[in-house]
Amino acid sequence: MEIEFLGTGAGSPSKSRNVTATALKLLDECNSIWLFDVGEGTQHQILRTNIRPRKINKIFITHLHGDHIFGLPGFLSSRSFQSGDHIEPLTIYGPKGIEQFVKTSLQVSQSKLSYPLNFVEIKNEGLLLDDEHFQVYGRFLDHRIQCIGYRIVEKDRPGELLVDKLQALGVPSGPVYGQLKAGATVTLADGRTINGQDFIGKPKPGRIVTILGDTRQVPAIFDLAKDANVLVHESTFGKGEARLAHNYYHSTCQQAATIAAKAGVHHLYLTHISARYVGKAARKLENDARKIFPATKVVHDFDSYSIELD
Amino acid sequence: MEIEFLGTGAGSPSKSRNVTATALKLLDECNSIWLFDVGEGTQHQILRTNIRPRKINKIFITHLHGDHIFGLPGFLSSRSFQSGDHIEPLTIYGPKGIEQFVKTSLQVSQSKLSYPLNFVEIKNEGLLLDDEHFQVYGRFLDHRIQCIGYRIVEKDRPGELLVDKLQALGVPSGPVYGQLKAGATVTLADGRTINGQDFIGKPKPGRIVTILGDTRQVPAIFDLAKDANVLVHESTFGKGEARLAHNYYHSTCQQAATIAAKAGVHHLYLTHISARYVGKAARKLENDARKIFPATKVVHDFDSYSIELD
Ligand SMILES: [Zn+2]
Ligand SMILES: [Zn+2]
Repeated sequence: MEIEFLGTGAGSPSKSRNVTATALKLLDECNSIWLFDVGEGTQHQILRTNIRPRKINKIFITHLHGDHIFGLPGFLSSRSFQSGDHIEPLTIYGPKGIEQFVKTSLQVSQSKLSYPLNFVEIKNEGLLLDDEHFQVYGRFLDHRIQCIGYRIVEKDRPGELLVDKLQALGVPSGPVYGQLKAGATVTLADGRTINGQDFIGKPKPGRIVTILGDTRQVPAIFDLAKDANVLVHESTFGKGEARLAHNYYHSTCQQAATIAAKAGVHHLYLTHISARYVGKAARKLENDARKIFPATKVVHDFDSYSIELD
Repeated sequence: MEIEFLGTGAGSPSKSRNVTATALKLLDECNSIWLFDVGEGTQHQILRTNIRPRKINKIFITHLHGDHIFGLPGFLSSRSFQSGDHIEPLTIYGPKGIEQFVKTSLQVSQSKLSYPLNFVEIKNEGLLLDDEHFQVYGRFLDHRIQCIGYRIVEKDRPGELLVDKLQALGVPSGPVYGQLKAGATVTLADGRTINGQDFIGKPKPGRIVTILGDTRQVPAIFDLAKDANVLVHESTFGKGEARLAHNYYHSTCQQAATIAAKAGVHHLYLTHISARYVGKAARKLENDARKIFPATKVVHDFDSYSIELD
């Protein structure tokens, strides 16, 4: 599991940061990549990475501001031109209106996609997706326009078979180990009965990744971020600008750090950085946040971090 | 008058070419810039030039395929954030559907522009615009979807005052020269009557720039290109691919060169270059065209050419 930032700027593209897009790479887990927001030029950014557009099979939109969605029609169209026969269906999750925007764009431009496109317009908070490996929860944030924060929860992985313990009891290795690992009760050749459940270690807790959109501080952020391995939080404003941030429905670096500390996250990645903050000024955002929550990074386009199991 | 190519690729962006956009810079003539097509990422390309988005007050769309329009909503939104008080109105010319696409994009994203936006959806061929300096004509091309080629005709500039001739007749310089230049009949202090019309040189013919969209070869191209200083023609296919070009509603480099020669244009700029043609292959497109029409260039992103008066 890896997170790669494709656009980390606020509002309009600048020379140093594109508008918002974040890729959650789940290649080892389920051979797919999920995209969170698709600002204009996201497909251009992807050209400069090793991401293959056909692997992106889910897109989560936080809100409908242009800097978060104007790259969608182009990305969807170009994904059609990928070589290879079968291109997987793609599902877009987002606020009401996303379907109208995408469908109008594709219809007006007479773009025919080579794969099925599905929409899930989010009307209620809560569990949005529940598959073999992940659950995704959405909560409403506070950004004037409807905005959704996402909490991606990896399902716990079953514990490993305690081979040492079995061997100490003289249970010979073989196909029986597979049965025991699956939790079955097995009768050995010597007549002993062994319950697999007793020889499986603790389940490994899955990872939690929280990716927010643009937002003021609201209690939902705590719920979304609780114990997350990674929290991606906007930082449109800097130290001491809480009032400004509130007026514009945004957050400061200090607010993001405060909630990260309170929610017990492991890593805080600050994004949606205004063009006012370049070079030293961006490092100051980071330093001001680190005073509150040391494991903070102001991310840049193409920064990529692996998210390890605990 | 200058022409700057902001995107010269076909279909999808590649590492070396963005999708279509062409800027006609009329800064000396009328202090404005006109844009022809606005593929995704055009605003990003503009960031790398000296073009100020507020100077762009007319946009001409050739057709509604995504690679020619998906940069519009983002460009229009970002133009709103330009500093300075008054941002000029902007008018978009294009096929029916362009207004629906732009308005849906702006409405869904709740983008409020800081300037008036007008639309002219083109239903008939002919004169589209007639202002102090320019006339713009549109003709329908042949690209399956409706596609418009544009011919921009600069109005003739009045001839200069023939100062030598006046001085040979002993007409003293002074405010009277201004009146004569304006074509007035003037009575001099010595009683002579002079008609300004007789002392004005030939009017200087205005320049003609022809910018086509994607198209098969059709007679309208000749009419649009006749005697143009500059013809911008697509070249999606190469030498000997006329059949393929026809099937896909496109043109070859040789077809573009042939029409350029026939129409007596001065310079042919080939654009809309497929990603199949890079490096040597692109130079071959150029060389194959030059055998038919020597003043041909395969243009690249950020190429800029001044268009001189004859
Ligand atoms: Zn934003
Ligand atoms: Zn095209």
